[in-house]
Amino acid sequence: MTSQLPTDLQQLDAQDTLRHKRDEFSVPEDIVYLDGNSLGCLPKAVPARLAQVAQQEWGEHLIRSWTRNAEAAQDWMGLPDRVAAKLARLIGANANEVAVGDSTSVNTFKALAAAMSMAGERRVLLTDTENFPTDLYMAQGLNKLLGDTWELRSCLNTEIMEHLTPDVGALLFTEVDYRTGRKLDMKGLTARARELGILTVWDLAHSAGAFPVDLNGCGADFAVGCGYKYLNGGPGAPAFLFVAERHHDAAPVFLSGWMGHADPFEMARAYAPAAGARRYVVGTPQVLSLSALDEALNVFSDVDMHALRRKSLSLTDTFIRLMEPLTGQYPLTLVTPLNHEERGSQVSYRHPDAQQVMKKLIERGIVGDFRTPDILRFGFTPLYHRHADVERAVLGVRAVLEGQP
Amino acid sequence: MTSQLPTDLQQLDAQDTLRHKRDEFSVPEDIVYLDGNSLGCLPKAVPARLAQVAQQEWGEHLIRSWTRNAEAAQDWMGLPDRVAAKLARLIGANANEVAVGDSTSVNTFKALAAAMSMAGERRVLLTDTENFPTDLYMAQGLNKLLGDTWELRSCLNTEIMEHLTPDVGALLFTEVDYRTGRKLDMKGLTARARELGILTVWDLAHSAGAFPVDLNGCGADFAVGCGYKYLNGGPGAPAFLFVAERHHDAAPVFLSGWMGHADPFEMARAYAPAAGARRYVVGTPQVLSLSALDEALNVFSDVDMHALRRKSLSLTDTFIRLMEPLTGQYPLTLVTPLNHEERGSQVSYRHPDAQQVMKKLIERGIVGDFRTPDILRFGFTPLYHRHADVERAVLGVRAVLEGQP
Repeated sequence: MTSQLPTDLQQLDAQDTLRHKRDEFSVPEDIVYLDGNSLGCLPKAVPARLAQVAQQEWGEHLIRSWTRNAEAAQDWMGLPDRVAAKLARLIGANANEVAVGDSTSVNTFKALAAAMSMAGERRVLLTDTENFPTDLYMAQGLNKLLGDTWELRSCLNTEIMEHLTPDVGALLFTEVDYRTGRKLDMKGLTARARELGILTVWDLAHSAGAFPVDLNGCGADFAVGCGYKYLNGGPGAPAFLFVAERHHDAAPVFLSGWMGHADPFEMARAYAPAAGARRYVVGTPQVLSLSALDEALNVFSDVDMHALRRKSLSLTDTFIRLMEPLTGQYPLTLVTPLNHEERGSQVSYRHPDAQQVMKKLIERGIVGDFRTPDILRFGFTPLYHRHADVERAVLGVRAVLEGQP
Repeated sequence: MTSQLPTDLQQLDAQDTLRHKRDEFSVPEDIVYLDGNSLGCLPKAVPARLAQVAQQEWGEHLIRSWTRNAEAAQDWMGLPDRVAAKLARLIGANANEVAVGDSTSVNTFKALAAAMSMAGERRVLLTDTENFPTDLYMAQGLNKLLGDTWELRSCLNTEIMEHLTPDVGALLFTEVDYRTGRKLDMKGLTARARELGILTVWDLAHSAGAFPVDLNGCGADFAVGCGYKYLNGGPGAPAFLFVAERHHDAAPVFLSGWMGHADPFEMARAYAPAAGARRYVVGTPQVLSLSALDEALNVFSDVDMHALRRKSLSLTDTFIRLMEPLTGQYPLTLVTPLNHEERGSQVSYRHPDAQQVMKKLIERGIVGDFRTPDILRFGFTPLYHRHADVERAVLGVRAVLEGQP
């Protein structure tokens, strides 16, 4: 197949300014892995880092590692802050606005609890009928805890603007829809929300590491996101919470744990928040998983996020273009917007037998995923995908739809 | 020093039925590490397990690892449940009563939120003036979230029984005091609490893995605990939550995340709890850290917890006995009870210059820890300590107190 790669795709790969980044990952060569939006590939530096943390930091230095070599930025106490600083650059935040740890679900709880407590008499949380379920579940659980005192109002994420009404206290949306790959106008929606006094909570699960995010440029209030998709931090990697600096005094810390205390080892009886977003770190961080994420983020250190975005769009444009003939022949409907402004870093199609089609694709080594009820999802990670991979994927889809053995 | 080891200690070590377990740990030989109650030593099998999880499960099999080899109990989806089952045996619980994940702090929040919601009109949470701070902070944060609708009442943990009054809805105590090493009468207190309709939330941070715990034998309602102390799961290892089976229908899930859903991949819009304690798992588990804990728990598979307890008491008895002459000569006051029933697996002394003394001890390679305001804390882990280590520790304390260079 490689020998038949069309000249234009060969050229795109040859001109790719990010092509050297693929070498920093363990990318299985026997498959085309298009699921980095579910679990990013392993950065090659991670296993050695894990061995170092386990054998030296834990095995030899033991508890001393909590404070050891702080001046060389190697202490575990400072690790959440160092990871936060690396992440902040990717999402348009200041380092002191990001707390790293816990899961996206738990961070969503923290953000919603703070936002709804700041929303005063406005007791509507606006979210997305099609939002990723855990966001909805966490909102439901929080509301139940508070005695069902708000309305959890849903709308389609294509109709948010008209649902921004003065009774809404906060909104919770995922910038890129996990099924369709549709990217919302975070800037425009946030601006309108702020005019109306609505607090914004953005889920960046499919944004962080996929393209440049500019939380402060948008004026966002809160955001959460995931470490294991486009950030390649490993299975269940620690998640993050963004709280805009202007809210640090007013946004209450309800999950007030000792690692967010101003002086954890003072062992004071009353909680006093640490400076900045560190206060939203709760319990003892899972250092092994956090160290893997820290190492994974080093891959981004020399990456121009705008170049990353250009490559992402080139990959998804190419995929859409090569798939186009198949949509005429088979019951395959593109659901990802053609407009670049409205596209994340994945491409999705509806197909009536999507589950069966994806099963066969995976058997052929084209690893995307199926999402209920009828979505075929293909994620593109510009750090390690080539246009050649795009063509292999399309040839695989063709073969499956044609019923080739 | 070893050549001078008194015969009785030599005999105790020679007769130790658990002495082979030390070989399963990386125990630094240049120090006497008496801080396994803060961070347990590295089980030797962990680095290879981490390498396997990173390189094969993540690097090669990628998302397929979530469900791959489930029949061989190797899928990541089932990992929290498998770890829960290993842990359950150590704490006198059934496997379906334990949820593994998150931090002790977050699990304390889950337990308190459930317990106080079940406490009806009884709006007092009784806890310990001297409890580990994060327990207090999490209770404070939850109460703030709920509009300060309860009274957070404190008493000394030596005076709990007389504070069990009918206005108390739930109690939150740590079975073994992290400073004094005093072990509470969990059975008696739980029995009395149940008579009065008070729900019990036990923090087992210094109990799980240190001696046999019998939650169901005591009739406990809720418990939380830590994976990185006596369970040796690694820095910030995932924590656990116990919810007695009789409460599974009534105890609400407020941190309702997708990993606690009955069918996570159904992507349903409404939360429906999984069977048993799995419902208290929230977001995607931090698989690297969780795998280390899973491996660490294998060390316990052939351990008789009653034999472990006997050895623990022999170690702490020996330490107290050898330290006794020093308490006459120096301002050193034993604060850990002599009575076995009231002792955990640590021994603590007050000393007016405790911080300075511990600093010097650590410089000499006797690694215990200092806890404010004046506590010297020495933790004993019967899986890897010998009576010979006890003597080395006491010789170190003597040398520091005598001002030896």
